Amino acid sequence: MDAYPDSLERLITALGKLPGIGRRSAERIAFHVLDAERDEADALAQAVRDVKTKVGRCAACGALAEGETCAICASPRRDRSRLCVVERPRDVIRLEATGGYNGLYHVLGGLLSPAEGAGPETLDLAGLRRRVDEGDVQEVVLALTPTADGDGTALCVAEHLRNTGVRVTRLARGLPTGANFDLASAGMLADALRDRQELDA
Amino acid sequence: MDAYPDSLERLITALGKLPGIGRRSAERIAFHVLDAERDEADALAQAVRDVKTKVGRCAACGALAEGETCAICASPRRDRSRLCVVERPRDVIRLEATGGYNGLYHVLGGLLSPAEGAGPETLDLAGLRRRVDEGDVQEVVLALTPTADGDGTALCVAEHLRNTGVRVTRLARGLPTGANFDLASAGMLADALRDRQELDA
Repeated sequence: MDAYPDSLERLITALGKLPGIGRRSAERIAFHVLDAERDEADALAQAVRDVKTKVGRCAACGALAEGETCAICASPRRDRSRLCVVERPRDVIRLEATGGYNGLYHVLGGLLSPAEGAGPETLDLAGLRRRVDEGDVQEVVLALTPTADGDGTALCVAEHLRNTGVRVTRLARGLPTGANFDLASAGMLADALRDRQELDA
Repeated sequence: MDAYPDSLERLITALGKLPGIGRRSAERIAFHVLDAERDEADALAQAVRDVKTKVGRCAACGALAEGETCAICASPRRDRSRLCVVERPRDVIRLEATGGYNGLYHVLGGLLSPAEGAGPETLDLAGLRRRVDEGDVQEVVLALTPTADGDGTALCVAEHLRNTGVRVTRLARGLPTGANFDLASAGMLADALRDRQELDA
């Protein structure tokens, strides 16, 4: 006999659909919710709903935003002469976490992927061009994944910005900090050799 | 700048309070919810709320139930001459999953724990005695955790049922099936030697 009450089984099923949560973890979490304070469970349920209803996209850059414009685009302290081009809204958050960039962003909404039939029309290239044409932007930094699709997309974006006079750069390639040298691939080593840097001692 | 919109940050915080979910997993799950179909997110939020509002305790045995009585107590196919005594409602589910028991259950609601000041008054011994006194029960199976607190609680329950004429048993002790023999403790081996069984070949 299956001894789970229906509501509990439904919660376990719903939790089991989340990434990285198997049946066993889902059961453990469901029992935690069952035993938790009512306030904690309410906060979780409400947070799930709120994310779906309140979080949208920034009208200017396409990053996540509550309201019309994201906090980055709205900030008077950001450098409006630089646009960092990323694939997805979450990439903005990861780059912000580095603390190493003070410009604005532009979310493409995907990558070119010939294998999956995703062509230039699936990317927000027109919006990017419009922002560049408005005249404040001096540099477009391409922060795309270092794969064939990412590199192809980077070339496509650069092509799209040709004749605008804007400087187009991309993130450095090299050895990943902290990685085991023995595990570096030939491609990584080739990149790192090509872009080797002066060491000022 | 923290680039998470407030709603997303609140969801990440709420998810991070669940067992086994760190900040990184919480972020990953929050983005999954953000990108998920509205129906999936609604089902999750509703399931969290329902578990808190709909799941209660069976009036007869104390196991989890939606409604007055749990499915086990309500079933005409269960053997009413046996009561299996467990610590928590979730123990019922684990025992049911074995498929090896067809009687009813009784949830004590805890264990005696001198170290934590939990005495017999914290356990539902009166309810157990009442069910035994009603006369159908012939065997009480103690299925408690094999620790000092579990063993102490088992003795206390047996004491409480003295003079009722009911048979009191406890789960077997021995080597855990599938375990590495070299890792068995002296206590495990002593139990297994004491309770050794005839092998009919």
